[in-house]
Amino acid sequence: MAEAAGRELAKAGAILICGGEGGVMEAACKGAQSAGGITVGILPGDSRDKANPYVTIPIVTGMGSGRNIIVVKSAQAVIAIGGGYGTLSEISFALKNGIPVIGLNTWAISRNNQVDSSIIVMDNPEEAARLAIDLASVSSNTK
Amino acid sequence: MAEAAGRELAKAGAILICGGEGGVMEAACKGAQSAGGITVGILPGDSRDKANPYVTIPIVTGMGSGRNIIVVKSAQAVIAIGGGYGTLSEISFALKNGIPVIGLNTWAISRNNQVDSSIIVMDNPEEAARLAIDLASVSSNTK
Amino acid sequence: MAEAAGRELAKAGAILICGGEGGVMEAACKGAQSAGGITVGILPGDSRDKANPYVTIPIVTGMGSGRNIIVVKSAQAVIAIGGGYGTLSEISFALKNGIPVIGLNTWAISRNNQVDSSIIVMDNPEEAARLAIDLASVSSNTK
Amino acid sequence: MAEAAGRELAKAGAILICGGEGGVMEAACKGAQSAGGITVGILPGDSRDKANPYVTIPIVTGMGSGRNIIVVKSAQAVIAIGGGYGTLSEISFALKNGIPVIGLNTWAISRNNQVDSSIIVMDNPEEAARLAIDLASVSSNTK
Repeated sequence: MAEAAGRELAKAGAILICGGEGGVMEAACKGAQSAGGITVGILPGDSRDKANPYVTIPIVTGMGSGRNIIVVKSAQAVIAIGGGYGTLSEISFALKNGIPVIGLNTWAISRNNQVDSSIIVMDNPEEAARLAIDLASVSSNTK
Repeated sequence: MAEAAGRELAKAGAILICGGEGGVMEAACKGAQSAGGITVGILPGDSRDKANPYVTIPIVTGMGSGRNIIVVKSAQAVIAIGGGYGTLSEISFALKNGIPVIGLNTWAISRNNQVDSSIIVMDNPEEAARLAIDLASVSSNTK
Repeated sequence: MAEAAGRELAKAGAILICGGEGGVMEAACKGAQSAGGITVGILPGDSRDKANPYVTIPIVTGMGSGRNIIVVKSAQAVIAIGGGYGTLSEISFALKNGIPVIGLNTWAISRNNQVDSSIIVMDNPEEAARLAIDLASVSSNTK
Repeated sequence: MAEAAGRELAKAGAILICGGEGGVMEAACKGAQSAGGITVGILPGDSRDKANPYVTIPIVTGMGSGRNIIVVKSAQAVIAIGGGYGTLSEISFALKNGIPVIGLNTWAISRNNQVDSSIIVMDNPEEAARLAIDLASVSSNTK
């Protein structure tokens, strides 16, 4: 799913920004690279050598999960895939900053028994990528 | 609610750590100070002058919401009150780091239609404070 | 030297803020604690257990040397003792932010063969502590 | 000088990483872009719109000068040009992390009346850029 989303983003000419590690992040970078895209990995540790092999531009923060907010703020739209607590922190920061969030198999959140429907729930990664591109353009134009 | 929790924490000799701003944070600091407690405010901005008047020790980060993870990591137990997205990011970081989270009128989270029950839901702030003290002690002893 | 400076700061009622680790930081905290002062350790790592034994309030950043700027911004005056590169980064951030810097056996800096005399060079730690208190008061009053 | 260094770095296929703002940073990005290079701007503020016009990839940290350490850690070699205190903090972090630093019209540092000659002093920006490339390769191979 992440690979398909990454590929579609790259096809549209977008730069993929992620945490630069393995798992979902690696799959997304792999997809983007397969379509000739640039991938930026904002790494938690102190060494570029920990980036997954599909990261074009490793950014070394040495700030652990403190780097999650940088991943989010650098994005014009966020696609959240899967459900770790790190992902939930990124969803939180995106919503706080008014950056659109599209969710694929990820968290649902609610307050006082009322669902917060700010996360746009989708299940097709290519469609998610195309919507992300659209939302990013809108967000740029209105700034 | 925050004031009552802060007061109870201070009575038990705990140091209150929060984001140092107004609203829930100020109420918690006010409660703690009324019981003679020390309050630490981890501020997002560049000036100690933005701390609420009940902060004993202002820590100036200049990192915006990037400071949320410091508030959490500095705590031995977290009481989340109310429901902003910043609070949700702090819940996320606490759960990721295995720091116990007690929730008062705050977020509920779920994945794939299954509730994640890691947040301990309570409604009495004094009881929440006492449980936080207990959980903090356990967490210290097992380290 | 650090111990003497820490003791004098605590005698004057100041809160000592430092990086919370061993060496110069530990000596300063030890001095402050011997005079009944509060010491704050802004730690680089992920665990409060790495604080030196004289830290009253450990702040856990998980940001490595990225926490140096927080140590500086939280201070109203800086006493730089000794000469690691981390100390030099803290001197830099203090001067950039207009926070007074007193140096004891520390770095000297120059540009284009001209000494930058912004660092106040002293050799007596008690006098350095008293000057720091004076400068902190001035800096607070003019804000 | 910054423009010439940026151009030479891009000619060698290097990615230019800087703070993304105006002045020296803008000149370096302009030079790199004129030779078809990629430029990364690690921004202090909360908006990509504050990047200089020659930044290809804006990284938004919202961490003020706290982002200086990220600029440095992401680099394999550092060219310091000019003499602000922010630059001095970056020199400090590079030396602390064992990343080679080449200085053009920048700070000189000394301890106890002894010059610290870790900064490689040069005056020709093209030569500085070529040395940076060489040092970056060495540093990668020995990791």
